[in-house]
Amino acid sequence: MYSFKNDYSEGAHPRILDKLIETNLIQQPGYGEDEYAKEAKAIIKRKIANELASVYFLSGGTQTNLLVLSFLLRVHEAVISAKTGHIYANETGAIEATGHKVISIDTINGKLTPDDIIKTLNEHALAPHVVKPRIVYISNSTEIGTIYTLLELQALYGCCQENHLLLYLDGARLGHALTAANNDLSLSDLGKYCDVFYIGGTKNGALLGEAVIFNKPELAMDFEYAVKQKGALLAKGRVLSVQFLELFKDNLYFQLAQKANSYAMQIAKAIKEKGYSFLTDSTTNQLFPILPKSLIQVLSQKYQFYIWKEIDHDYAAIRLITSWATEEEQVVNFIDDLKTFR
Amino acid sequence: MYSFKNDYSEGAHPRILDKLIETNLIQQPGYGEDEYAKEAKAIIKRKIANELASVYFLSGGTQTNLLVLSFLLRVHEAVISAKTGHIYANETGAIEATGHKVISIDTINGKLTPDDIIKTLNEHALAPHVVKPRIVYISNSTEIGTIYTLLELQALYGCCQENHLLLYLDGARLGHALTAANNDLSLSDLGKYCDVFYIGGTKNGALLGEAVIFNKPELAMDFEYAVKQKGALLAKGRVLSVQFLELFKDNLYFQLAQKANSYAMQIAKAIKEKGYSFLTDSTTNQLFPILPKSLIQVLSQKYQFYIWKEIDHDYAAIRLITSWATEEEQVVNFIDDLKTFR
Amino acid sequence: MYSFKNDYSEGAHPRILDKLIETNLIQQPGYGEDEYAKEAKAIIKRKIANELASVYFLSGGTQTNLLVLSFLLRVHEAVISAKTGHIYANETGAIEATGHKVISIDTINGKLTPDDIIKTLNEHALAPHVVKPRIVYISNSTEIGTIYTLLELQALYGCCQENHLLLYLDGARLGHALTAANNDLSLSDLGKYCDVFYIGGTKNGALLGEAVIFNKPELAMDFEYAVKQKGALLAKGRVLSVQFLELFKDNLYFQLAQKANSYAMQIAKAIKEKGYSFLTDSTTNQLFPILPKSLIQVLSQKYQFYIWKEIDHDYAAIRLITSWATEEEQVVNFIDDLKTFR
Amino acid sequence: MYSFKNDYSEGAHPRILDKLIETNLIQQPGYGEDEYAKEAKAIIKRKIANELASVYFLSGGTQTNLLVLSFLLRVHEAVISAKTGHIYANETGAIEATGHKVISIDTINGKLTPDDIIKTLNEHALAPHVVKPRIVYISNSTEIGTIYTLLELQALYGCCQENHLLLYLDGARLGHALTAANNDLSLSDLGKYCDVFYIGGTKNGALLGEAVIFNKPELAMDFEYAVKQKGALLAKGRVLSVQFLELFKDNLYFQLAQKANSYAMQIAKAIKEKGYSFLTDSTTNQLFPILPKSLIQVLSQKYQFYIWKEIDHDYAAIRLITSWATEEEQVVNFIDDLKTFR
Repeated sequence: MYSFKNDYSEGAHPRILDKLIETNLIQQPGYGEDEYAKEAKAIIKRKIANELASVYFLSGGTQTNLLVLSFLLRVHEAVISAKTGHIYANETGAIEATGHKVISIDTINGKLTPDDIIKTLNEHALAPHVVKPRIVYISNSTEIGTIYTLLELQALYGCCQENHLLLYLDGARLGHALTAANNDLSLSDLGKYCDVFYIGGTKNGALLGEAVIFNKPELAMDFEYAVKQKGALLAKGRVLSVQFLELFKDNLYFQLAQKANSYAMQIAKAIKEKGYSFLTDSTTNQLFPILPKSLIQVLSQKYQFYIWKEIDHDYAAIRLITSWATEEEQVVNFIDDLKTFR
Repeated sequence: MYSFKNDYSEGAHPRILDKLIETNLIQQPGYGEDEYAKEAKAIIKRKIANELASVYFLSGGTQTNLLVLSFLLRVHEAVISAKTGHIYANETGAIEATGHKVISIDTINGKLTPDDIIKTLNEHALAPHVVKPRIVYISNSTEIGTIYTLLELQALYGCCQENHLLLYLDGARLGHALTAANNDLSLSDLGKYCDVFYIGGTKNGALLGEAVIFNKPELAMDFEYAVKQKGALLAKGRVLSVQFLELFKDNLYFQLAQKANSYAMQIAKAIKEKGYSFLTDSTTNQLFPILPKSLIQVLSQKYQFYIWKEIDHDYAAIRLITSWATEEEQVVNFIDDLKTFR
Repeated sequence: MYSFKNDYSEGAHPRILDKLIETNLIQQPGYGEDEYAKEAKAIIKRKIANELASVYFLSGGTQTNLLVLSFLLRVHEAVISAKTGHIYANETGAIEATGHKVISIDTINGKLTPDDIIKTLNEHALAPHVVKPRIVYISNSTEIGTIYTLLELQALYGCCQENHLLLYLDGARLGHALTAANNDLSLSDLGKYCDVFYIGGTKNGALLGEAVIFNKPELAMDFEYAVKQKGALLAKGRVLSVQFLELFKDNLYFQLAQKANSYAMQIAKAIKEKGYSFLTDSTTNQLFPILPKSLIQVLSQKYQFYIWKEIDHDYAAIRLITSWATEEEQVVNFIDDLKTFR
Repeated sequence: MYSFKNDYSEGAHPRILDKLIETNLIQQPGYGEDEYAKEAKAIIKRKIANELASVYFLSGGTQTNLLVLSFLLRVHEAVISAKTGHIYANETGAIEATGHKVISIDTINGKLTPDDIIKTLNEHALAPHVVKPRIVYISNSTEIGTIYTLLELQALYGCCQENHLLLYLDGARLGHALTAANNDLSLSDLGKYCDVFYIGGTKNGALLGEAVIFNKPELAMDFEYAVKQKGALLAKGRVLSVQFLELFKDNLYFQLAQKANSYAMQIAKAIKEKGYSFLTDSTTNQLFPILPKSLIQVLSQKYQFYIWKEIDHDYAAIRLITSWATEEEQVVNFIDDLKTFR
């Protein structure tokens, strides 16, 4: 059995493990004060073209989301998210557990638009009987594989700024978004057109780790207290910083994402050629093909993946995910098995 | 400069890194469902002689404490801790942030007794105007290096059971406690004489990781939801389980702690021989010697450590910590520097 | 200007004020231990035919909802509500502020059905990545004036019991529900076919006050701690208990609700006769007629009410509410103004 | 039996009930928007000589404390209180339940000094491992009957301002403080030398109600959302505003407190003349005399009061409280019974 279930089935990229070994016995201050953190933060700030930014390394996506949102929201404030948004659908009420409502919005493609925001604000006008929207949460790539264009991001950020809202971008799969064929966003756009975002490591080559970036340092003031309070401050912060140092000291982070996308697009092409359609218009490493159940049955003999959604009596959508660690041979096999199905 | 500041200045024990490399590319289910987790949990349950226990791997001590306590406490319930307890003194209000008061108790040696508990219960009799004590939190070894004897633990647990209280033991440095010269507790006693405890990995050889054990599985029912909700469920749970597998598959965990203690005791012996006293009666890897400020000044030229407490005009207490990674040569140097001071 | 905006525009029914005066200087224990509380609780338990129930008096609906739900839910558990439910739509995230997600469900008439519940459970199967539904929240009458029948309530409660869910009924306007023409529920059914419910006083004659009833006393164990902790334990608890004593010592509570319904039905009849329709099929004291904007314009010269919803270019729905204190003369005037509109 | 147990054994001052009746059937907007609220707020702002202040009416002291503190504190911030402070000792962890640590300080007389504050700040220097003190909470009169002088309040406020701390004053018994014989503070000092304070109604003649005042309106921005969210926004806000209107439209509030103090001082004088001492140096309506247990035994045949503290084998301290409703005859009786004891 080979798994296309997710992009965290393996450990870390070998270069990361090598770097952990190389630095292993060098004494360092604890709690994120290590020299690797300083170095990695400097590199990231350079790459996003925002030297004033504040960067922190955290362990996972849910942890990052709940920390950022609970830190920035006051008691009566809420966050707006697509219904497919990770904070709404997949985090066991993590945001609500910090005391804040997640206002959910139906979308076609997992993306929010200025119109969605304006409509939501209008629906929350009856102060003080409703929560006060304060943050807009988006993911790029989204949880269903789609990506934001530069124009879309700029429009959304503009809308946020006009309405006293903060824009927070969940970049659990930011590498995959920025290396998609149809992408026109760069890291430096992220440093400009949102208030806070994070660069996901866990799903793109790291053992664990996300780098959260506050583009406006005043928003980050005292954030380290919150990190400690929520149990997210690692004694050996080096575990995270060394990995980001290795991923960003050259282009490794994007190479890995590019590879994952490439495998996904090969599979997508084969699926299309076979005449099947997709639930979502993904251009990244998550695919949601709608396949005959008989084919799904055949594939599930050799491959692991999620059955995503019942479509009708004969068809269902599945989720296929590739990663930096996906084996080319398995991609070829999968495509072959697809082609030979009749 | 050599650091005796803490026991997390280095990375992981080399055997752990080797194991991470060895298992790195083997596909595994995410979120703690990997085969290494199953194996490591089985070993731990065997070693604590409690096959019914529920074991979870988490990333750090504060995370573990806040997860266990917030999961077990109802809204109006509180936890009792020594004033020196990590949850009271060093976790940025992590427990209060989950909604619960930490009732603090002055102690001489960082340890709680049945008398402390009874007194606290009496002081919280005026229901419903006061919180209801429900959990007793202790650390072994304590934050000031002392340890509990079997009799002390049994007495405390008996008191808890008689008073409808749960006993939770923070084992961030449990290895050091169980390998202290004056220790008479075993892992299997821990599996018996408390309700929940954790075995600390971060401060004893792991990159990161704590193994929390619910001795009564009914207390752990649904705990995985809480782990996810608080951002503590690693996508690549293997990062934690592989380390515990390596630490516990033989006696590595205790060998490492034993080594740290041994270095500390060598230093302690030299300090005593020099005629200095200690703030606390530590038999583990944390020492709190009271030294002339002139000596502290000399030592701080070559070694890093915390100035713990001003004693008087001429003396201060410092904190020295050794670990599995402490270099023998540096211990020898330190003792030499101590001896030659006049 | 006369207000049909809500059912809390006036103070208390005169009999309640008289009773407050009569008992005013009699010394009583504080914090809900007064003799009036004992007496009022006994009467209520008799009327709901559940002598084992636990009764508490609280100040308002949002306070009651957040107290009951946060007390009964564990950290990872959630409550299911109609989208029109007060806890979802009108309480400024009060439930989320206590750490719990409100799972919202689209409904036609503001009521939940067993099918809704089963569907929601199925959508929350991916443990531990989603919250765990634990309580079903319903209102009777609903926020849009509709009511539950006995069969509907029994079916819902049966479904809850089969699925390890608690059923909680918000009775802010329970009096109006139980005195509606099409009602077949009695107070004693409430004492049987849900786990917790409350009888609303504020919207039916009291100055303030809601009586929350735990049908199963074990659910209420320690509830008084939570009441105090959330700032809901009045030093002079008599303020609440005296009012409920007066409302329930005879049939006053239902007489007042009946009167409010009667006025509403008179208005509804006139609206129907005029040929207008309604947004919801209300049989209680809240009406949502869809009227020509020109008529709304005319009415708003003399009466206050909410413009509820834009329907189209020419029509909008308004909300009209009557109460025990509504003046008959104003009802007559309103109907006249309606009839003479052309 | 006559009760000296507290100052909330009776209902409201008759003038308040009269006013409730007088205004009872006049329609008013709900949720604190009634005209009585406007009027009462204007009067209060004039009396505290701060026209810019923001005033809100709430139901009780614990509710007020938790609302103000949770609204003003960010997640990692804490409040400093005397160990005798109501928020630390008597509110069932209400503040911690909103996520914030209450840092407690031992005091002799229930009052905090600039030295206490500076010491606490020094003890919380190890960021980010400790909470960040942000608010200083004091009570006037204190929970043990003592009061602050103008100089003390000014010194404390100065210290707060120098250290980026807010000063919040709990005035549950502010009337009693400001009418004490040794008082030199006025309402207008309160409007100047703290950031937020509240004027207690419940313990001084109101059925229920506290008026919270933000001296700096920017601190109160959006506070009404929090009031609603925590279940503290009464639909019939008039219940509170009418009472404060009556209490403050002339000098009634202070007359009532003055009367309570006067009774207490008569009793205190008799106790002193009898040769007994006091646990605290109260000049307000709470007395803590240390009496022979045999005398306590005698008194408890006719009067209710709290046994406050065991002193030794023969003596205990009791708490006696007088109020606006205390009957003069009972004070005379009590003094007689005291005098005739031998």
